[in-house]
Amino acid sequence: MSKPGGKVILGHGSGGRLMHDLIREVFAARFDNPLLRQGDDSVRLSINGQRLAFTTDSFVVKPVFFPGGDIGRLAICGTVNDLATAGAQPLYLAAAFVLEEGFPLEDLERIADSMQVAAAEAGVQIVTGDTKVVEQGGADGLFVNTAGIGLIPAGVELSGANARPGDAVIVTGTIGDHGIAVLSQREGFRFDVDVCSDVAPLSGLVKAALAVTPEIRVVRDPTRGGLATTLNEIAAQSQVAIHLVERAIPIRDSVRAACEMLGYDPLYVANEGKLVLIVAAEVAEAVVGRLRRERYGEEAAVIGWVREAPAGRVTLTTGIGGTRIVDLLAGEMLPRIC
Amino acid sequence: MSKPGGKVILGHGSGGRLMHDLIREVFAARFDNPLLRQGDDSVRLSINGQRLAFTTDSFVVKPVFFPGGDIGRLAICGTVNDLATAGAQPLYLAAAFVLEEGFPLEDLERIADSMQVAAAEAGVQIVTGDTKVVEQGGADGLFVNTAGIGLIPAGVELSGANARPGDAVIVTGTIGDHGIAVLSQREGFRFDVDVCSDVAPLSGLVKAALAVTPEIRVVRDPTRGGLATTLNEIAAQSQVAIHLVERAIPIRDSVRAACEMLGYDPLYVANEGKLVLIVAAEVAEAVVGRLRRERYGEEAAVIGWVREAPAGRVTLTTGIGGTRIVDLLAGEMLPRIC
Repeated sequence: MSKPGGKVILGHGSGGRLMHDLIREVFAARFDNPLLRQGDDSVRLSINGQRLAFTTDSFVVKPVFFPGGDIGRLAICGTVNDLATAGAQPLYLAAAFVLEEGFPLEDLERIADSMQVAAAEAGVQIVTGDTKVVEQGGADGLFVNTAGIGLIPAGVELSGANARPGDAVIVTGTIGDHGIAVLSQREGFRFDVDVCSDVAPLSGLVKAALAVTPEIRVVRDPTRGGLATTLNEIAAQSQVAIHLVERAIPIRDSVRAACEMLGYDPLYVANEGKLVLIVAAEVAEAVVGRLRRERYGEEAAVIGWVREAPAGRVTLTTGIGGTRIVDLLAGEMLPRIC
Repeated sequence: MSKPGGKVILGHGSGGRLMHDLIREVFAARFDNPLLRQGDDSVRLSINGQRLAFTTDSFVVKPVFFPGGDIGRLAICGTVNDLATAGAQPLYLAAAFVLEEGFPLEDLERIADSMQVAAAEAGVQIVTGDTKVVEQGGADGLFVNTAGIGLIPAGVELSGANARPGDAVIVTGTIGDHGIAVLSQREGFRFDVDVCSDVAPLSGLVKAALAVTPEIRVVRDPTRGGLATTLNEIAAQSQVAIHLVERAIPIRDSVRAACEMLGYDPLYVANEGKLVLIVAAEVAEAVVGRLRRERYGEEAAVIGWVREAPAGRVTLTTGIGGTRIVDLLAGEMLPRIC
């Protein structure tokens, strides 16, 4: 039960601790079932022996057009990636629109074009949909929801609960690009930075990694709450410690400079085209080598290791050799980043 | 292509002609594929030989609490019913929330409670979800999206394209209850009427009908745009005429009186707990008899017949013996009714 008089605050949508608390206390407490308890970005189902992944995401990004993409590309890629991180081949998407009265039809067409381009790239079909309209002031432009179904091949077993001490932690490229690109376009915040969103469909990247070895334990996409939050989720689900080496984490100079200017930690800034993989140590170099040959994995790198203790914690060796705890995002950093 | 400078208007969300045009010109033109072209409320898929139904719906009803239900019950039942009308056994739902900063947590808990009650009644599990928060003024309270997966049993073939001349048209109870119940609570519109929303999960009702005979051709739920719009969709998909007998259509006196007062035609008012079935004439009485034994089908009745011509049209014999055309809803009657 929430406290009497409690209200939703922006931090409840951050991807961090407040969101985890809201989901646990309000939704998980009521909807509880073994499938919901899996706790990954998509759920793994079995229907008459077919192993499927199923996921949903609503997109409220502001502004709807940003360097490198728009809400349409984001909505397709976000759901494709949530299926891919379950090891599934993404197949079918549903798209639902909440439109504000007065939204320009040309913008809607541009967004639909962008969705179709991203769907074609990811090899998925948009097979059903829904359209609602609210009066002016009832929503902010448009919100898009995409739900998706994918097919999990035999033998693939990915879950945030599978990390084991000794495993290597891989990231497939530079972090923070999406968050900084969106923020640079926001009213009251506008600044010049030479960075585009990384928004991309990553099912090909997951497939490439799985082709190297079945010893892939975990695949996740570090979106809201950034790399730090995703790794904290994995550490908690697997009851392991994750240790990062700061200087191994790829970050663009422009993103680092923007973060310094704004007082943000890039570890908490959203990505929409990056994966975190946790793999057996002995295959780490082979997986990184393979990922680097892929379009969206050219800067893949090992950035840390899984340890036994302190279980549930993420730590980081800083550039100057110190160690600090990397916690779940505590409040709200960048509202409406996806 | 839309006209330059065109904007989204409320009528684009009506369920009627404007919405059909928007979907065709903006979405279907771009996303086009054979599955999307099925044109029913959920899509029928085959994955490795398993026949599945898949659907999505966003809910923006205003107010979120209304006589007989709330947005949570509506979100579960709406998606359960879209799966059921494909003949599927609804299995798994995904729930995504867009919350406005400041929304009371107690209301959110009440809505989540209501979702769980409806899910349990329908025999479905909520297995994955998403939560986004927008700043105050960025949305109106909360919007809920539900997507769902169901399993279509062997031998069941329901589609809006299956109606044949000679078939009977059945409705499972009184029409217009949901629309009038929601409207009666709306600010600037409030009036006293003794009617509750009919919002209910109808998968049991579909199952009961299918147990009588496989000669069920079409099952649909007449939500936005009402009975008139749903029958027009079926007439167009099946390229048949549908002829209704006005005095056979069950309508509560209170709903009829409210519609007269407000100048609405109950044929266009939304339902959330009713089905339209089109069945072979020879089984119509047996199906109606079976439906009447079910909780949500007590007032089931044959209300009309399918004819060959005029193909794509719905006509009605009025109480005084005249005949009129019942067209698709042309504009926006009741915004944010679901």
